[in-house]
Amino acid sequence: MIPIRTSSLVDTAARYPPRVETISFARGIPAPECLPVAELAECARAAIERDGKTILSYGSSAGYAPLREWIAERHGTEPGRVLLSNGSLQGFVFLAQRLAPGRRVLVERPTYDRPLKILRDVGAEVVPVAMDDEGIDPDALESALRDGEPPAFLYTIPTFQNPSGRTLSTERRRRVVELAAEHDLLVLEDDPYGLVRFEGEEPPSLYELSERRVAYSSSFSKTIAPGIRVGYFILPLELERALEATATATYITPALLGQATVHEFLRRGCFEPNLERVRGLLRARRDAMLAALERELPAVRWSRPEGGYFLWLELPQSVPGTEAGGVTFVPGTDFGGGANELRLAYSYVSPDEIATGVERLAAALPVAV
Amino acid sequence: MIPIRTSSLVDTAARYPPRVETISFARGIPAPECLPVAELAECARAAIERDGKTILSYGSSAGYAPLREWIAERHGTEPGRVLLSNGSLQGFVFLAQRLAPGRRVLVERPTYDRPLKILRDVGAEVVPVAMDDEGIDPDALESALRDGEPPAFLYTIPTFQNPSGRTLSTERRRRVVELAAEHDLLVLEDDPYGLVRFEGEEPPSLYELSERRVAYSSSFSKTIAPGIRVGYFILPLELERALEATATATYITPALLGQATVHEFLRRGCFEPNLERVRGLLRARRDAMLAALERELPAVRWSRPEGGYFLWLELPQSVPGTEAGGVTFVPGTDFGGGANELRLAYSYVSPDEIATGVERLAAALPVAV
Repeated sequence: MIPIRTSSLVDTAARYPPRVETISFARGIPAPECLPVAELAECARAAIERDGKTILSYGSSAGYAPLREWIAERHGTEPGRVLLSNGSLQGFVFLAQRLAPGRRVLVERPTYDRPLKILRDVGAEVVPVAMDDEGIDPDALESALRDGEPPAFLYTIPTFQNPSGRTLSTERRRRVVELAAEHDLLVLEDDPYGLVRFEGEEPPSLYELSERRVAYSSSFSKTIAPGIRVGYFILPLELERALEATATATYITPALLGQATVHEFLRRGCFEPNLERVRGLLRARRDAMLAALERELPAVRWSRPEGGYFLWLELPQSVPGTEAGGVTFVPGTDFGGGANELRLAYSYVSPDEIATGVERLAAALPVAV
Repeated sequence: MIPIRTSSLVDTAARYPPRVETISFARGIPAPECLPVAELAECARAAIERDGKTILSYGSSAGYAPLREWIAERHGTEPGRVLLSNGSLQGFVFLAQRLAPGRRVLVERPTYDRPLKILRDVGAEVVPVAMDDEGIDPDALESALRDGEPPAFLYTIPTFQNPSGRTLSTERRRRVVELAAEHDLLVLEDDPYGLVRFEGEEPPSLYELSERRVAYSSSFSKTIAPGIRVGYFILPLELERALEATATATYITPALLGQATVHEFLRRGCFEPNLERVRGLLRARRDAMLAALERELPAVRWSRPEGGYFLWLELPQSVPGTEAGGVTFVPGTDFGGGANELRLAYSYVSPDEIATGVERLAAALPVAV
């Protein structure tokens, strides 16, 4: 008799023994319960009903005007300096295409892997600058600035960095903007995680310290939903105009429906309560991961983020691959880091899965205790 | 006393005498009443309520799976060959970046201006191929294929072309795909207007004549709403994978909310009735423009489109600028056409405005009758 496969679950069950499902510390995305589904459904409907003729036609390449205004007001600037894009990575592509080809671009070591790829693809020379638990090292930054051609810009994620979870100290923030002024350096501050703070005092953003030298980018991916694809940039006016022209030539108008839905979410006062809820869900996950690491991997170094999605593991020896003991992670080398380093995301899985995952990691990793 | 300007309307009123508002034959966008606002509001809500966890998170870079499946079925192909992008222009950018740098790309003369700019920006050599009332001239295409390096692809809008409103005849369609086979040529068939047909028989698409040689692109901009930003491509599998990788590196996931809203619109059976309604609204505009041209500009040549948004005026002498008699248009030279040619869009303004606009144009244009 030929066995009949009734479902792909049969295959899965055959391949893995029961109760050993893969646990993902690789996925840097919010847990599904972070997404305010019902509210956004209602906001999308209301936004189209109120302003459908605008949202459903072509409009400004810089995005939905009421949302540009809200962001400008929040950051104390002009709407004309705000560019909305289909996720902030798309805006980074525009900026890199405009400024980086054939030029040096300074980045943190380690840093977010997607911008690294984009910079290489546009023909930039990526110059990694060392960082430690307090963020980018200003002395290393100064050396990089003195040594070689003036860079197109410094790309930095100063708060709850992807991948390390580290935050640049206030003192160093001041040093960074001083160096920017001395060396006529444009700083791109990428800040998607800043509002996802669980505890501790919020340092000033680099943008707040120097509106003149710092371009700021963020998104609603971590505060509302990543699939809504609403990123934004605050730029020097001339650069905003140049990137807006690139946006026109690329997609005419960004996806206004997501932007108008976000705007409706904001104007209904849903943003702050949702943020509090999301912070609580993620804090529980961060706490679970820190507690499990202390229990299971006492001889290993890790960062202690006060917010965001990630922490960074430094092991005494290198770890090959992207999985150990049925737990996935992203190797440090993907971010320009060391072969003994790993990024662990606590954002996606549940606190219980985090405890189990760290236990399994500890058993599987070649850690000399 | 210093005069106080209370509103910019004051300026406008001062500059134009009353009742001479500008009439736009320049805007190639649907009239506001074409947009199915109430239905889309309801569809956006329903889509998020039903599938919010998917729509609001990161997903496939090729777009919302149920919509890929719908499109694949409609075109008799595999979902894996369908790439959804944030408007079809964005997908064209991916394709141009992938295939065109440093290579020849054949285009119709005239053709849509945005792809021309994109091709030049990526460093392609744009080779215009002559067309007439029956569309691209196959003999001219054959010469362009024999003469010089093999091109990366031919870009063509065979049905209700932007800017000319012309449609490639069935006989010529067969010649074009024969030439493609002989010369191992990739044809990109851009077909956003094909479904907006008012009358006449629908010729086979180039894609239907040769799935192997033809990549097909379209969007829901003309059949549902341009602001929804849902373009799509049907590609050879290898090319789909390459462009999907570019999409991942550019924006991770396209804007799924618009795609899921379109999918909901389709599954509710709103698409065909809406298309009938839109065809009626646009047919009335096309008819108004043809009637007015016959009345007012009998000595001038124009195309007689059976669908779409545009018609093409050939004047006995060149027309400088983008406006005449308070009527705006796009000069032929923007599309690689002649200085005596104009694109008139009848899609945006009302039939009454069209009659008035053509009357004013006829009075203002330097036409030797």
